Order: sequence, then C-alpha cells, then structure tokens
Amino acid sequence: MYTEEQLKAALSKIKAFAFDVDGIMTDGGIIAINQDLLRVYNAKDCFALRMASMKGYPMAIITGGISKIIEQRFIGHCGFKEGDVYLRSRNKMDHFDDFCRKYNLSYDEILYCGDDLPDIGPLCAAGIGACPSDSVPEVLAAADYVAPLKGGQCFVRHIVELVMRSQGTWTLDVDQYKREF
Amino acid sequence: MYTEEQLKAALSKIKAFAFDVDGIMTDGGIIAINQDLLRVYNAKDCFALRMASMKGYPMAIITGGISKIIEQRFIGHCGFKEGDVYLRSRNKMDHFDDFCRKYNLSYDEILYCGDDLPDIGPLCAAGIGACPSDSVPEVLAAADYVAPLKGGQCFVRHIVELVMRSQGTWTLDVDQYKREF
Amino acid sequence: MYTEEQLKAALSKIKAFAFDVDGIMTDGGIIAINQDLLRVYNAKDCFALRMASMKGYPMAIITGGISKIIEQRFIGHCGFKEGDVYLRSRNKMDHFDDFCRKYNLSYDEILYCGDDLPDIGPLCAAGIGACPSDSVPEVLAAADYVAPLKGGQCFVRHIVELVMRSQGTWTLDVDQYKREF
Amino acid sequence: MYTEEQLKAALSKIKAFAFDVDGIMTDGGIIAINQDLLRVYNAKDCFALRMASMKGYPMAIITGGISKIIEQRFIGHCGFKEGDVYLRSRNKMDHFDDFCRKYNLSYDEILYCGDDLPDIGPLCAAGIGACPSDSVPEVLAAADYVAPLKGGQCFVRHIVELVMRSQGTWTLDVDQYKREF
Repeated sequence: MYTEEQLKAALSKIKAFAFDVDGIMTDGGIIAINQDLLRVYNAKDCFALRMASMKGYPMAIITGGISKIIEQRFIGHCGFKEGDVYLRSRNKMDHFDDFCRKYNLSYDEILYCGDDLPDIGPLCAAGIGACPSDSVPEVLAAADYVAPLKGGQCFVRHIVELVMRSQGTWTLDVDQYKREF
Repeated sequence: MYTEEQLKAALSKIKAFAFDVDGIMTDGGIIAINQDLLRVYNAKDCFALRMASMKGYPMAIITGGISKIIEQRFIGHCGFKEGDVYLRSRNKMDHFDDFCRKYNLSYDEILYCGDDLPDIGPLCAAGIGACPSDSVPEVLAAADYVAPLKGGQCFVRHIVELVMRSQGTWTLDVDQYKREF
Repeated sequence: MYTEEQLKAALSKIKAFAFDVDGIMTDGGIIAINQDLLRVYNAKDCFALRMASMKGYPMAIITGGISKIIEQRFIGHCGFKEGDVYLRSRNKMDHFDDFCRKYNLSYDEILYCGDDLPDIGPLCAAGIGACPSDSVPEVLAAADYVAPLKGGQCFVRHIVELVMRSQGTWTLDVDQYKREF
Repeated sequence: MYTEEQLKAALSKIKAFAFDVDGIMTDGGIIAINQDLLRVYNAKDCFALRMASMKGYPMAIITGGISKIIEQRFIGHCGFKEGDVYLRSRNKMDHFDDFCRKYNLSYDEILYCGDDLPDIGPLCAAGIGACPSDSVPEVLAAADYVAPLKGGQCFVRHIVELVMRSQGTWTLDVDQYKREF
C-alpha cells in the first residue's frame, strides 16, 4: 500500500488506465441468460470513462469474460477504442504487455484496477495497482491503493477522478462534450 | 441549498417537473444487453409520476440515454406525453429551454432533478434544483434541495410528493384513477 | 395496528391470502424491456406460497401490473390457480370482492398484503391488512400488522409462515411435496 | 453446529462439494422472463468453483430449479461435469445419493450447502452441512457450519476456500489456469 506521498508521486506519472470488469465495473453480479452473460454497469462510472477518453487517456479492458456485449458496452458507450477490450484473458500480463506496447507506455504510466487472483500480475506491475474495498485478501494485500468503495458502487468514477483531478484534467468542456458524444 | 423558508416559497411556484434518468429514476445501474441498455425503475416512483400527470403537471425527461425503452417506459407507464422525453441530450439546457417554451413555463416554475455534471445547467436554472444524496459533489454543492434518499430508492416519489403535498394536490380520486389508468 | 392479542385472534380466522405484487413480492424494482416489464422475485417467498397452496389456502394476486409474465410466475411456479391472478386492477376492492365471492370467504378470513395507496381499500377491509416496513406512510398508518422486513426481502415468507405456524399448517410432508411439485 | 475442533476434523475428510442454487449461488432473487427464470450469480464464487474443479474436487448442483440456463451456467462456466447438475430435485436425498454412488463418496466426504427446508436432508447427511447467515431458522439450527455471509455475497467463495485452504489446495497454477480455462 502506498503512503500518501508515494501515491501522489505515482499519480503524477499515470497516462493510461486498464481495468478488469467483474467486481470493478460491476458488483460482481452476473446474470446468466440463454448462451450469454449480462452485467450491471454504473452510469457515473461510464461518465468518468468518457471524460478520460475525451481527454486522451488510453484505456484498456482486460477480462476473463467472453461476452461480445462487454465490447459493445465499452467501445460503444464508454469511449474505449477497438482492440483495447481484451476478452478471454487468462494470463492477464500478456494483454497488459500488449496494451503497453501499443501505446508505448511503461508500466509506471498505467493505473490498473482489479479485485481477484488473476489480477495480481498487472496489479503489481502497474504504476498504481488499485482495488475496491471488497477485493479478495490477496489483492487487498498486493494493491498500492485500496479505495473506500466496493466494486460497482462508483469505484471506477472514484479512481478516474483521483487521477484526473490530480492532473487538472477533470474539467467538463460542454462544447467538446456535445461534439464527441 | 435553500433554507426551509426559501424552499417553501420556491415550492409554491412549481408548475412542472423535469428529470434526468440514471441515478434519479434508478440507482445508476445499467444492464447492458445485445444492442441496448436496460434500467431498473421503481414502482413507487411510477405511481407518483402518474399522480402528477393526472393532476395536470407537465413533466419532461432529459437524458443522455438513447434507448427507445426509456420512451416506452415514461410515455407508456408513467403518464409522460409524446415529445416530452428528450433522449440523446448533451447540452441539457437546450432541451430544458424547449420544454419551457412548449408549456410557456418560466424557469422558476420548474423543479429539475439531476445527479451528475451534465445536470448542473438545468439544476441551477430551475426554480428548485433537487438531487439525491448520492449525487456527485459538484451537484450536491449546486442543488437547492438535497433529498435524504439515494437515486432509485423512492427519490422521485419523495420529490413529487414534496411539491404536491405543499400544493394540496396529493390526493387520490379513485374514480379518476380508474378512468385514466 | 393490532395489539399482540388482537393479532392472535385475527390470525386464527385467516383462511386465504391476497397479495399486491410490486413492493410485496419484490423490492419495487421494475426492469423495463422492449414492450414488457420484468420483476425480481424471491425463492424463499415462492417456497412459502407453494406450501400454502399445497395446504389448501386460496391465494390471489391483485395488481395494477399488466404483464402476462406475472400470471406465468404465480400460476406456473407458486401454486396460484387460473383466474386468481388479477392484472390491470385499478379499484382493487372490485377484485378483492370477486375473490371473496369465488371462495365464499368473508373479509375477516383474508390476509391482504399491500404497500401503496391503491392497496388501502383491501388492506382496511381484510381481517389482517399487512405491509412491509418500507410501505408509504398512509399504508403504515392503515395496516393491522407492519412486518419487520422490507418488500422483496422475504416479507411474503414471513407473512405466510406467521399464519401457517399459528395454525399448525407449516409442516413439510415430503411425499406430498414430491407429488405436487 | 460444529465446534472449531469438530469443523477442523470434518474439513480434513471433505473430497467433494454439493450445492443448492437459490440463496446459495444467488441472494435468492429470481427474474421472471417469458417462459424462463434468470438468476444473478457472482464472479468471485465462479472463480472458486473453477479452482475446485481444476484441482479435481467432484461438484454437484442439486436444485428444485428447472431452467436449462442453470446447466449452461455451471457446466459451461464453472467447471461442473455433465450429469452433475440435478434440476427438478424434490427429494434432494435421491440426487445426493446418486452423486455419492457415482463418485464412490461416503457422506462424510461431502460438504453440502443449502438454505431452505428442502435442503435439510442432505445438510444433515453431509460431513459438513454449511449454510449462509440468511438461511431459514430450521436450516440455521440444523447446519454444522453457518458462514458469516449471506447467500450470493461470496458465500460459495468462502466455503470453497475454507475447504481448499485447510487442505493446501487453494493455489493458482497460472499455466494450468491458462490451459484449462
């Protein structure tokens, strides 16, 4: 866990975000339907992701999930770019590395959010490994920053604002907002 | 934030309602399905909206959402009129102004409910800008009235009753109820 | 509100149940989908309803809801009989009376559960008018029994067990259970 | 209820898991849709089930539920084998016995999870009968172990980890993980 000092220093270097989905973008709930899985996202998280996208932060999804609806959600509504939503991810470091190479980012420049064992690799590698308060014990122990919020309860909004406010980019330009969304 | 005195005075002028959807009519949760988004509404909120409609209050939805299901929900079940459900709203003031013109309402005669940054324009313009207790900090700071309820947890019922009880219109005429619904 | 004494006396006369749906069988949440509404029921409530049905208690649904899925749910899974699920109910007393006539029941022999203004008629007429703790103020004031549970959080299980335990009918005959369900 | 000593002894014998669905894998919520029922599962529970499957623990579902989606969920995503998901189970002991015979297991070698009256048979028969904290009173009284978690809130994760940590099998072999899932 970072001290406040360390967190401040680490925040100043962040240029990009990478996120797990279940337990991060959601409370971990999965609605099983015929041949697919549905998830309940949060409108306030989505707004923050669009704001980060609008200000030029590269953003990746790295999830074990396989549903095409995940791609639709993040590319269609939240400002993620084609190719940056990694589904079926088993060793998440492979996709984490791919994302780094694509945008020429060093590990220190990425904030990664995860909540369960498969996230520990990128969580430890990233400049800031952040997790919600209801993560599994191994993740709580490994994370640089434990947010005071559970997954799905505006955790992503909190994390994105934490970075963007520290860098002065959390500002709503209404004209750009109207143009881009 | 209004004093109790100011709120009372402002309530007496309200003739119409305008609402954001996510975080107001819902707890902010969005279920992503193939090519559309679903939302979880509240039956008690719906009853209050039908009551307000039955008593003649003009009501608008002003949302960034794009799903036709939002129109179906509010026009089909909650007493909103065709044309008063504004989807794809980016600068919400444009639609707020359109609603005012259509019903010949001054800003002071509208109570607006919102919970996130895009709502701040109409929230400040309206006679009463109201928000749920789990709104973002900027909205909590800008609102005239912060309800003691979170979005989706009967916040809308609370707001509609607040106005209608203050004006003596919160009364159930069972015959009219049977006729209109 | 009944005293403990009055409640005990009233319980001994109950022969049938009638229920509102939203806020009773659910927490009030309504998922709007294309051309229909979905509701989240509770498995423990369902078990109690099947137990009551198996022991011969007549049971009715009286709801303003219009979805055929409500019929499917209660007739198909919870032991309600065809014709005892009243949809599109505006003046609920009409259907309450119809249910009484059909099973030759006096008002005193029915326990009615409701949580909002349209329920007040049958709630006051029934031998026991019961409501969850998150009912609207008018209902809380009118009810004979306010349960220590919110709607959807096993409120129905609580109510059905209250009657059946007081009458010694809350017993699981596994052979009958296997035969009937 | 087992003493800590008894629980430790019982844990050392467990070789397999059997689970009820509603209230165990979920919070008991059931979304009724046209001709079927949907359930909300938990991603962290699913991860634990896959881990147990990967380490070779036989696992069964024994549920009164009838939806084919239950099979899809547990066989398709959580590592259960064809034939080990028992739907339409009324006397659960029949299916519990079938599972035992199939894998040549004694009752002492099975941990069973249930929360309602139909679960009491296998709950009492199993080496460890475990239940969530929001089970019905009869189950709370009959269980060997009452978890400090409600159904659907990572109860299954807790139970699976309890067994696997006590047996030293809760370890993630990333290569095997990549190969099998």
